Parts: sequence; C-alpha cells; structure tokens
Amino acid sequence: MTDPARLSINQMTVRQLSLPELVSSCVESGIGQVGLWRAPVQAYGVAETAKLIRSAGLTVTTLCRAGFLTALDPAERAAALADNRRAVEEAATLGTDTLVVVSGGLPPGARDLRAARERVADALTGLAPYAEDHGVRLAIEPLHPMYAADRCVVSTLAQALDLAERFPAHQVGVTVDTYHVWWDDQAPAQIARAGAAGRIHSFQLADWTTPLPEGVLNVRGQLGDGTVDLREWTGYVEAAGYTGPIEVELFNERLWARDGREVLAETAQRFAEHVVRQVSAAEAPSATGPAGGPSGTPA
Amino acid sequence: MTDPARLSINQMTVRQLSLPELVSSCVESGIGQVGLWRAPVQAYGVAETAKLIRSAGLTVTTLCRAGFLTALDPAERAAALADNRRAVEEAATLGTDTLVVVSGGLPPGARDLRAARERVADALTGLAPYAEDHGVRLAIEPLHPMYAADRCVVSTLAQALDLAERFPAHQVGVTVDTYHVWWDDQAPAQIARAGAAGRIHSFQLADWTTPLPEGVLNVRGQLGDGTVDLREWTGYVEAAGYTGPIEVELFNERLWARDGREVLAETAQRFAEHVVRQVSAAEAPSATGPAGGPSGTPA
Repeated sequence: MTDPARLSINQMTVRQLSLPELVSSCVESGIGQVGLWRAPVQAYGVAETAKLIRSAGLTVTTLCRAGFLTALDPAERAAALADNRRAVEEAATLGTDTLVVVSGGLPPGARDLRAARERVADALTGLAPYAEDHGVRLAIEPLHPMYAADRCVVSTLAQALDLAERFPAHQVGVTVDTYHVWWDDQAPAQIARAGAAGRIHSFQLADWTTPLPEGVLNVRGQLGDGTVDLREWTGYVEAAGYTGPIEVELFNERLWARDGREVLAETAQRFAEHVVRQVSAAEAPSATGPAGGPSGTPA
Repeated sequence: MTDPARLSINQMTVRQLSLPELVSSCVESGIGQVGLWRAPVQAYGVAETAKLIRSAGLTVTTLCRAGFLTALDPAERAAALADNRRAVEEAATLGTDTLVVVSGGLPPGARDLRAARERVADALTGLAPYAEDHGVRLAIEPLHPMYAADRCVVSTLAQALDLAERFPAHQVGVTVDTYHVWWDDQAPAQIARAGAAGRIHSFQLADWTTPLPEGVLNVRGQLGDGTVDLREWTGYVEAAGYTGPIEVELFNERLWARDGREVLAETAQRFAEHVVRQVSAAEAPSATGPAGGPSGTPA
C-alpha cells in the first residue's frame, strides 16, 4: 500500500495559513513534508523560511514555480530568465531539490504554440545546468489544455517529456498533476515513459469538479469530491517506479474561506481515504480463517 | 484558395435570429449554407423548417446534435437512444446528410472515462445503421478536455476516430472543430488519418479567447479575435482531402447581444479575412511585370 507518510501539503492548499501556522499545523498533524510557493516565501523571507522549516524537521518537496519563458520581447525574456535563476537559488536555499516549471502562455497576438514551446526549450538550455549547479532539478508541469493560450503552452505529458528529454534526467523531468492530465488517455503511457527515464520529479494531486468558475483557476477539488480516480493515477506513477512525495495542491476558494487547520486535517483524511491503498480482502490477513494472523495469507 | 462559398453559418452563431430571419439574412448576404440545432428547429417545426430552407434555396450542412449516450441508468439510456433516433429522423427531414454527435459526460459519481466511451460505442452500434437507413451519417465531435467530466468524454480527435473506425466511414466519422482541438499537437496527424479514411464529416470554426467565463460555455471567439490560426487548420483539413462546408459555430454572449444581421455580415467578413486563403505574391498574377495578366505568372 501507499505509505501515508508520502503525503506532502502544498502551501496553496491552505494559503490562509501563515508560514509559521503552516509549519506548526503540519507538525501537529504528523505531516512531514510541504510544497512551497515563491511569493509567500519571499514575503516571509527565503532564509527565514528555510530556518523555520528546518528547525521544525519538515522537508520541502517542491518550490512552485519557475517558468513563464515564452515572451518574445527581448527585455521581457531577459527579465524572465533572471527571475528563473532567482527561483533556482531560492529552491537551493529552501533545501528542496525540485523546482516546478510552468512554461507560460502565448504572448499577445501570437498564435504559434510550437514556436512558444521552442522558446521554453531555449530558455531551459541555460537554466537546467544553472539549476544542477545549485543541486536543483527542474520539473516541467503540463497544465490542462484550457490554459494553453494564457498560462502554459505545454498541455500534455507527452509534450513535457519531449522538452525534458533534450536534457539529462537529473536536470529536467516532469510534474504529474492529476488535475491537468486526468482526461488524457495517453497519460498513463507517458507516465510509464517518464518513470522509465527517471523523469517523474514531482507528483501532485487534485480532483476535478464542475462547474468551472470564471477564469477557471480556483476550483481544484478536494480529494474525493470529483471525477478523478486518484488511486488509479497513484497506481500509474507507482508502477512507473516513483516512490517520492505525493503533494496535494488545491486551488480552491471554498477551502481558502475555511479554517486552515481544519482543511489540513480534512486533506490528510481524504488522502488516507482516496489515495492510500486499502488492503484488499485478498491481501489482508484473514481475521477468521485458519491462515489468519500477522503473517498469514488466505489460501 | 479556399472557396468563400464553402462558408456555412451555424444557427448558434446568430441564435438571436428566428429561423425566417436567419434564412432571409443568409439569402441577402449570399450565404448558401446553414448548420441547424434541434431545439430551435423543433420549436419552429421540423417539416416547416425544411420547407422554409428549401424554398430559399439553402443547404443544411449539419444538424446539431445527437449524443449524450453515457447514462448508466437503463431507463435514461433507453430514452437517450430513442431521442437519438428522433435526431436522425429530423436530420433526414431537413435534408442534411450529417448529424453531429456530442457523446455526453460522466454520470453522477462515475470516474471511468474509458467505460463511458464504451457505452457511446455500444449506442452507436444501433444508431449508425439506423442513420444510414435515413441517408444520414454521424459525426462524432471531440469536445475540449475541459468538458470531459460533464459534457463529452471524447476529448481528442484520436479518441473520436478510435470510436468511428469501429463503423464504416459512410456511417460514422468525426467533426473537426478548431475550438476543441487547436491546443492539440497530435490533431494535425489525426486530421490526416480522418481524411485518408473519408471520415471528416464536418469542419467547424471558432476562435479561442480568454478569460473563460463561469461554466466555460459561451465565449467562443469571433474568427480572428483569438489564438487559433484558422488558416493553418483549414489547410490541414484541405490537405487531408476535405472539400466540404466550413461551418462557423460561435457560442458567444457578446455576439448574441448584438444585431444578428450585423453579426452575420461580420462573420462572413472575418471568414474572408482569416480563412479564405489570400493569393500570395508568388501566386498572384503580377500587376506590373512582363508576365502580368490573367494567365501570367511571375518568373
């Protein structure tokens, strides 16, 4: 079964909590891992955050996010590259080995998704070795195709892997997020492709619920509330050899309006219920049969 | 170049027009083809609509839409099948050879997209020959993956063709709608696959604009307003051998709030501007060179 200790809480799931509140809540709940976001970390202080996290004994599974590398304007492009290098440095300071990359959308007036993806690849050519020098690997995250125009021109795991495979696996891999790939019947095969190459650098969970709100951003469903078979997807990444953290990243106005500690507890409960594999009758020691007991297996 | 006469106006683009207004506007604008929707046609009367269209000399390129074939409940399923047979009969009465099929979403509580697609295939097994008997072919329309849960479990042209290929091409093909496939780097190859098998039964255009509204339904962009390279996609279907109607189907609150005749004229103008191939300098007869003139080509 999936180890419950693999749960990592992405900071965005409970963004109503301050960093000290997030840390103390995780410690109280027995959650040992967090995914962080640059803006709240910068607001609290990168070094201060690193110290806070470390002193509580927590692990930072990812930093979200670098990217937005599709600008055509040279000055914008240079600024994006500089900002991405800062993201690498922040990840290193926080002690995480994984920086999530969201590629960026089409620049105003542009219509060429292929060309935009090539600009992402070009930018990674400089960024990937810079990240390696800092002990950080990049995890390209395909976003749902509904974001292709304005947020991320990389829409499928296949596209993300096509990009990643231009670089060594220890420099560039992918993020598998169920919210973005659950509709894609090609994704299980692509997860196998990524796993075989050691390129699953992050695995994130969110459920899909409808109706989508204006702007389609902030209704990523609590685990179990939607149409994603989370156990099935977890099974795909595990079958591909992934044994790392499983991050729950929910952008959800309704969750943000509630008490953050309550949401944290609910999320851990839902993770146990919908992700951690239940021991099936066939696997479980029989309580009544002759082969029962701790080491017994049914005939 | 793409023949401007291939333009067909889907009724939803100007749904503020009554059927007689739609017909007279098309005649005045020199538009010879329309795509119709079941609800307004039923409200006006199917036979009455057929008579109105025929007497104006217009052609009905498609009827939208059959489908919603994913129910698990036997009674719901039987009702859907009966309704689909009525849709076939309506298409035949209207004199169109093409019935667009939108598969339907996941039933409440369901999470298995594959199983839902199989139910669509099962339903088509009865419906496709029934349609053939009425001189009607089915055109499975993949809808954008953002509709996978609640509207259409067929999200890509590849999936639509996998379904269609279980049937003869004259019974079941696909609808290619730029709004739904523009993000998909696999779609051009799938258009070639569909064309080679004679399975492009409908080609529809809409542009992609953001932000998406709540419910993500009614902002399909006017041609030229968004991120879709409409001429490129038209080129793909033409390269695949498609020479049929090009239907403009826009669901757009802003267009619906305007004068319908004005929207119709604008749409024809945008079609000429963004879809009909411009004669390039290399192709055009030179106005000044020695090889100029109707049959001249530049050296």
